Amino acid sequence: MADAITQRATNYAQWYLDIVKEAGLADNSDVRGCMVIKPTGFALWEKMQKALDGLFKSTGHVNAYFPLFIPMSFLAKEEQMAEGFAKECAVVTHYRLKAEPGKPLHVDPAAELEEPLIVRPTSETIIWNTYKKWVQSYRDLPLLINQWANVVRWEMRTRLFLRTAEFLWQEGHTAHATAKEAEEETLQMVRVYQKFAEEWMAMPVLVGPKTDGQKFPGAVYTLCIEAMMQDGKALQAGTSHFLGQNFAKAFDVKFKDQSNKEEYAWATSWGVSTRLIGGLIMTHSDDNGLVVPPRLAPTHVVIVPLGKNDAERGPSIAAAEKLAAELRALPRDDFFGYEPISVKIDTMFDKQPGFRYAEHEVRGVPVRVEIGPKDIEKGACAVARRDVPGKEGKQFGIPLPGAAEHISKLLRDIQASLFARAKTYRDANLVTANTLDEFKALFPVEKDEGGTTGGLKFVLAHWDGTRETEDRVQAEYKATIRCLPFDGPQESGTCIFTGKPSARKVVFARAY
Amino acid sequence: MADAITQRATNYAQWYLDIVKEAGLADNSDVRGCMVIKPTGFALWEKMQKALDGLFKSTGHVNAYFPLFIPMSFLAKEEQMAEGFAKECAVVTHYRLKAEPGKPLHVDPAAELEEPLIVRPTSETIIWNTYKKWVQSYRDLPLLINQWANVVRWEMRTRLFLRTAEFLWQEGHTAHATAKEAEEETLQMVRVYQKFAEEWMAMPVLVGPKTDGQKFPGAVYTLCIEAMMQDGKALQAGTSHFLGQNFAKAFDVKFKDQSNKEEYAWATSWGVSTRLIGGLIMTHSDDNGLVVPPRLAPTHVVIVPLGKNDAERGPSIAAAEKLAAELRALPRDDFFGYEPISVKIDTMFDKQPGFRYAEHEVRGVPVRVEIGPKDIEKGACAVARRDVPGKEGKQFGIPLPGAAEHISKLLRDIQASLFARAKTYRDANLVTANTLDEFKALFPVEKDEGGTTGGLKFVLAHWDGTRETEDRVQAEYKATIRCLPFDGPQESGTCIFTGKPSARKVVFARAY
Repeated sequence: MADAITQRATNYAQWYLDIVKEAGLADNSDVRGCMVIKPTGFALWEKMQKALDGLFKSTGHVNAYFPLFIPMSFLAKEEQMAEGFAKECAVVTHYRLKAEPGKPLHVDPAAELEEPLIVRPTSETIIWNTYKKWVQSYRDLPLLINQWANVVRWEMRTRLFLRTAEFLWQEGHTAHATAKEAEEETLQMVRVYQKFAEEWMAMPVLVGPKTDGQKFPGAVYTLCIEAMMQDGKALQAGTSHFLGQNFAKAFDVKFKDQSNKEEYAWATSWGVSTRLIGGLIMTHSDDNGLVVPPRLAPTHVVIVPLGKNDAERGPSIAAAEKLAAELRALPRDDFFGYEPISVKIDTMFDKQPGFRYAEHEVRGVPVRVEIGPKDIEKGACAVARRDVPGKEGKQFGIPLPGAAEHISKLLRDIQASLFARAKTYRDANLVTANTLDEFKALFPVEKDEGGTTGGLKFVLAHWDGTRETEDRVQAEYKATIRCLPFDGPQESGTCIFTGKPSARKVVFARAY
Repeated sequence: MADAITQRATNYAQWYLDIVKEAGLADNSDVRGCMVIKPTGFALWEKMQKALDGLFKSTGHVNAYFPLFIPMSFLAKEEQMAEGFAKECAVVTHYRLKAEPGKPLHVDPAAELEEPLIVRPTSETIIWNTYKKWVQSYRDLPLLINQWANVVRWEMRTRLFLRTAEFLWQEGHTAHATAKEAEEETLQMVRVYQKFAEEWMAMPVLVGPKTDGQKFPGAVYTLCIEAMMQDGKALQAGTSHFLGQNFAKAFDVKFKDQSNKEEYAWATSWGVSTRLIGGLIMTHSDDNGLVVPPRLAPTHVVIVPLGKNDAERGPSIAAAEKLAAELRALPRDDFFGYEPISVKIDTMFDKQPGFRYAEHEVRGVPVRVEIGPKDIEKGACAVARRDVPGKEGKQFGIPLPGAAEHISKLLRDIQASLFARAKTYRDANLVTANTLDEFKALFPVEKDEGGTTGGLKFVLAHWDGTRETEDRVQAEYKATIRCLPFDGPQESGTCIFTGKPSARKVVFARAY
């Protein structure tokens, strides 16, 4: 309940965890760093999966599935990747336990694997090892393949959805005959992520390349989408990598081109994960609980029939059921992924109305309909939108005939309005620092994580393009370069940290 | 191509592997026992998932996600389970690799886990360890949860889809306040599997309990669906377990009932896996390749425009595109999961028509439409159904106006007809052995796996109900008791193996 939720202004980090708990999204498990995604949280992920999968398929991709385990020698073949992931690998070394009488269950020392297997932290190596068998000629290209899977990275500091040892994601892995085509794919997919973030999650994002210091291990360059959370911190929400011929060379994936010349294939990979659920929460939710954009809401509408006794409740329930049926019967369309509007009827008559409303608010149901005896008299209902809490968001006297269409339209309005609000917030907090003093003032040391509702901002500033300066800024201000935004200012200038020439302004932020 | 497929009568086991390969369903990977599910195979699995998921949700279940890793001590808590799975566990013992200069990448000995983690072979233990936190009162029950996941069982002899070290599956795990409710759930879910097998896979199944000797480790009893493959062998295609209070006791999951008395919760679990794809192949496919029931077909219709030159091809292509658009625009309905009919147009004009037809046959597209210059003259097309190869299954002169509706109806006919054919075959090969001699004749030693197209049968016979007899029959005839079918003969008699009393006839078969 709302009482159980820490206010954002008091402790933003705790507010986040309270939302996750009270909305029933996830739990920590007894396995270090691994979470349990609870039914409501998983329903959100299913909605995300469906929308993303549709976008991938409409851009020509197909799904496949590759092994969970990666032989250690595969990882070793691509040096940057081995270095990048070695420190966080879960390693399978044995294939059998032994249950001996009188002894506790134990690992069977006689069943050691000849070669250790890594639980995939990402699948480039095992997939390119497979592509070797699939690619001989330019006719076999492009391969446009996506995988929905679990991956494991042994993170030491974890936080539900945002950073967990095991997480769920999708990873696209494509192979192309030319660098140009692979680069177009890399760009296309980051734009697909932008579309999903903005049109489904209602979460505006900056799009652009990472610096060399922040790119994916094994990539030539990495494009990303970066979102601003309500505390002003950045969340890297999706990445798309141009991998050049690195993996083709590591796994010897060659093809004969049209002139019968042998060449290595060109690669991309791109992924988003259950981390997006954390981003969704921190973009829209408020002190009353979760707020979910309608296109991703597992339940779109909850109808709350009211009444003091059975005589009063009967007509309220009947009207609720009629309206629910009308909502479900509305024509299906692309906006809701050709699924019917999802409606629940709340029959918790043993609780006070205020308790019931708060319950649905905590869980983020976009629209609540109330039908009581007075409404029945007027043939009407009250309709409350979750994104505007309190009286301001509640309309009384909506006639029951036509209410279904009214609510369907309202759901679309809420989607648009959540995006507009988030974009206004983001734009208002994307500022420029023209001097080091300005920069310092924007990243004060005391505004560290676990702290307040922020006041942190995305800061555009000139940077000399060196890894050295980037590292120093990170060490001193805990701010990293989030990206070189495609849509940001492109003019050259002077680095505010070193006075050296700067090709363009980049975006600094503290980040999750 | 068809030439590459071993005929069933020559070598049934090789025929199966040829289908998997030539239809592009899966590959062995370089990781022992793990398969790569290729795009066409995965598209089949996605269709299965969608249909099953709909059936689970319509029976009140929700999805969630639990950790991949299970602490070894959890497995140890349920003795039958520990014994049942100890021998095939992949064990994670370390959480870091080390990339040292001059040395090959290696496991970091300093990063050994305090407690080994098992890669889940099934999730009862980790889930019931979680349920402990979720269940306090009868109001928290029932929990009706399903998980889609990968699991690992270190099998020594593997075969694509049928038995692999890693496989994909769903596992339902429910908790109830009473034994009666849990038993009803166990039965409901095996009936859901039957419905899916028969109405989507067009694969008839026997339904009933396993013997104690064949039940799931940790179950009180196991219900199953058993399907007959074309070689007369049985495939266990799905299981639903009544777990009693075994896991509640192992993980201390207690609740207060309505009279405030503490009781352990009652459990079920149930699962089907990518093994179903193997069952699908071996139920319907033929010597020309894969045959897929339309409700699970990734591509329902392929249209093959024909023509010797551009002048001839132009009108054929135009007609193909028009028909494709009409097919895709047909009203969506439950039969195809509210998805549009999936249509591809084959433009391989550089190949002979026969090659093109064979290609689609190998891949199991249910309906092929041919449109050539002569058809265009008549305003018609030819329509071939995959389930009836050759001339018999091909209709000429189907008028293009109305062809979409004709094909939509044909797809439904094919679905029904595949089921009818498989059921006729199964029923014809379900026989009774009234004496040991009859039984011996039905399970000759030479008809072993890897062999011929079978002639093997499902055999109803009286059995004395003992594990001893069951084990002896398995050792001597390689036949196991598949189930005690609900819908089989129920009268008592005399065991054909021992002459002892038998409560009822049971079904013996050789099995995958």
